[in-house]
Amino acid sequence: MKKSENNVKKTEKLIEELGLKLEKQIEKNDNPFIEIPIRGSANVSFDEALQRIVLGDKKARRFLFNVSHARRFMQTLLVASYVKKDLLANDLTATIRDLYYAKKHTIPGTKEDTIDEQNESNLAIVDLEVALETFREMLHLRAEPKGRMAGKIIIEDRVRDKVDTIDLSKMGSGGWAIPSIVEQIEFKKSDVEFVLVAEKNAIFDRLNEDKYWEKNNCVLITTAGQAARGARRILQRLSEELKLPIYTLTDSDPYGWYIYSTMKYGSMALAHESERLGCPKMKFLGMSASDIEHYNLQKATIKAKEVDIKRALEIKNYSWFKQKRWQEEIDKFLEKKYKAELQALSSKNLQYISNTYIPEKIKNEDFLP
Amino acid sequence: MKKSENNVKKTEKLIEELGLKLEKQIEKNDNPFIEIPIRGSANVSFDEALQRIVLGDKKARRFLFNVSHARRFMQTLLVASYVKKDLLANDLTATIRDLYYAKKHTIPGTKEDTIDEQNESNLAIVDLEVALETFREMLHLRAEPKGRMAGKIIIEDRVRDKVDTIDLSKMGSGGWAIPSIVEQIEFKKSDVEFVLVAEKNAIFDRLNEDKYWEKNNCVLITTAGQAARGARRILQRLSEELKLPIYTLTDSDPYGWYIYSTMKYGSMALAHESERLGCPKMKFLGMSASDIEHYNLQKATIKAKEVDIKRALEIKNYSWFKQKRWQEEIDKFLEKKYKAELQALSSKNLQYISNTYIPEKIKNEDFLP
Repeated sequence: MKKSENNVKKTEKLIEELGLKLEKQIEKNDNPFIEIPIRGSANVSFDEALQRIVLGDKKARRFLFNVSHARRFMQTLLVASYVKKDLLANDLTATIRDLYYAKKHTIPGTKEDTIDEQNESNLAIVDLEVALETFREMLHLRAEPKGRMAGKIIIEDRVRDKVDTIDLSKMGSGGWAIPSIVEQIEFKKSDVEFVLVAEKNAIFDRLNEDKYWEKNNCVLITTAGQAARGARRILQRLSEELKLPIYTLTDSDPYGWYIYSTMKYGSMALAHESERLGCPKMKFLGMSASDIEHYNLQKATIKAKEVDIKRALEIKNYSWFKQKRWQEEIDKFLEKKYKAELQALSSKNLQYISNTYIPEKIKNEDFLP
Repeated sequence: MKKSENNVKKTEKLIEELGLKLEKQIEKNDNPFIEIPIRGSANVSFDEALQRIVLGDKKARRFLFNVSHARRFMQTLLVASYVKKDLLANDLTATIRDLYYAKKHTIPGTKEDTIDEQNESNLAIVDLEVALETFREMLHLRAEPKGRMAGKIIIEDRVRDKVDTIDLSKMGSGGWAIPSIVEQIEFKKSDVEFVLVAEKNAIFDRLNEDKYWEKNNCVLITTAGQAARGARRILQRLSEELKLPIYTLTDSDPYGWYIYSTMKYGSMALAHESERLGCPKMKFLGMSASDIEHYNLQKATIKAKEVDIKRALEIKNYSWFKQKRWQEEIDKFLEKKYKAELQALSSKNLQYISNTYIPEKIKNEDFLP
């Protein structure tokens, strides 16, 4: 059986079990409830051992016969019904917006709408995810896709019954667009030693044009800014399943470093997803605050703004930035008060990043944790 | 000779000619100048015959020995020199940010910087483009890439000396990522009848999952919002070179309609690029304001905001929205004061857009100009 068929069956079973549990409660004349892990900051923490931002074990019960619970209870079941009957049963995926439009209606005989704002169905979706201990993609719900990929790797991707074999070493100057859901993807053949992630499209283009991935046997990925779920998940799968080291490139500023940390450890808002979106073995290649001095880029720096300083002070306090090396880097940023883009390396020469900076950093294992 | 080698030679020649002209002026002890078409709104208009927003023929001369011209004169030549010696000579491309970092330096013996802010080099780049009557991609300057593509078409893309043959019918759920520069792409084999452009990633994903392009012999493109230069140019090439009809899908609101008009006619800001980025034969498939009534989507509409009304009144006045059909649509929007997303069709059923809405509109040739 194909992996993705398996996934559909697994999720269908989870929803069925939830339904059966509710049915039993109703038969016993109990007040039906769904048990949902709490997602507020009081139940979120950084797990040192797992190297991940995680959800604690506090749970809340949402009852049908409770004036303040009933509406959300109904919405959660509407989501479950849409996922099972409309999506999984037909092997279709949809966006959370589609779901909103599909399930929003006026309840017959009343003036009450099932859903007023999309925010309500969005929250009900996350409720269902955590209640079932599953994740959005297993519910066949898509997010906005972002990111591109190229490298010496052949993958198999499936669109319903159509299976495509895609050679990512033959994607020209564009690359392969990473989809929102990557659960169905299978890594068929790879001849690579590591994965290089660039926060920016411009760096992907530079490295692709310089054939960096061809010369250095790697997979090249750009997240095109803050990483989307599909890009994060495929990075994790490359790390866990193919045991490939992952090195990350962002600009030298608190926002870039935070983008890195989200890919590595997860985020507070999606703490319940860190297990499948986090990438704890990821390493930070650059650009660090020390790199600016080491590579003599002072003239190509940008003066830090108030908001950069404020962000640096915030991330300095996050548990997952507490390692000595990161504290030193953040302190250096706060002392020098300048930031630098990766493109600052172009002030030396256009191919310096491909021919000198990255190879040197990798050879010397000059990474941050 | 390959098309792209040809392009390099052509641009090198244009820059050389500019240099020779200046050299002659210097030898004659004239005040050297560059003649640059004016880009302000006074020199921009809508050309009815060409169906394009165009630059007029007003030109300005920029002199070396003129206190208010000298700095920009120098910057324009810095750009020309970088493009010729660093990029074209090595068959490399760069971003406008790279160029900024590469050419920004303190002039020896002075405290004067060649470039203070990137905005200065950006303006100098456009000056050079219009002075040479060429365009950014011919100068080997990349923009931020955006958009994805799939369909029954085989293309050839080139990264320096590496040529990839890419079958866009085998791109799985992701699609091929459209690069920033598409001049080097060759359409090798196509078995398609038209091109369908969706403004939104979500619609691309829906149509790709429903195998719309496979069943209907078309190329499917998403611009993922306002279309990037690469996406616009490839649309034009599909229209002009392969003579394919292009049908466009956006949300039913003034912003969506404006995105369509930019792809079709060009924009005021890039009037000098309409000739190569515009797509005058493009047609608007939907969603129109009339569609909302015709498809009974009133319940899935969104109330128009102040800013939407304002935008509608603006575009109503644009010459390229003056056709009767568009005026009626904008009036309907102003009367009903609601807008609708393409996903509103999901309130019927998820595949309604693929199975009913689009096929019906195409069959009935229910397009807007």
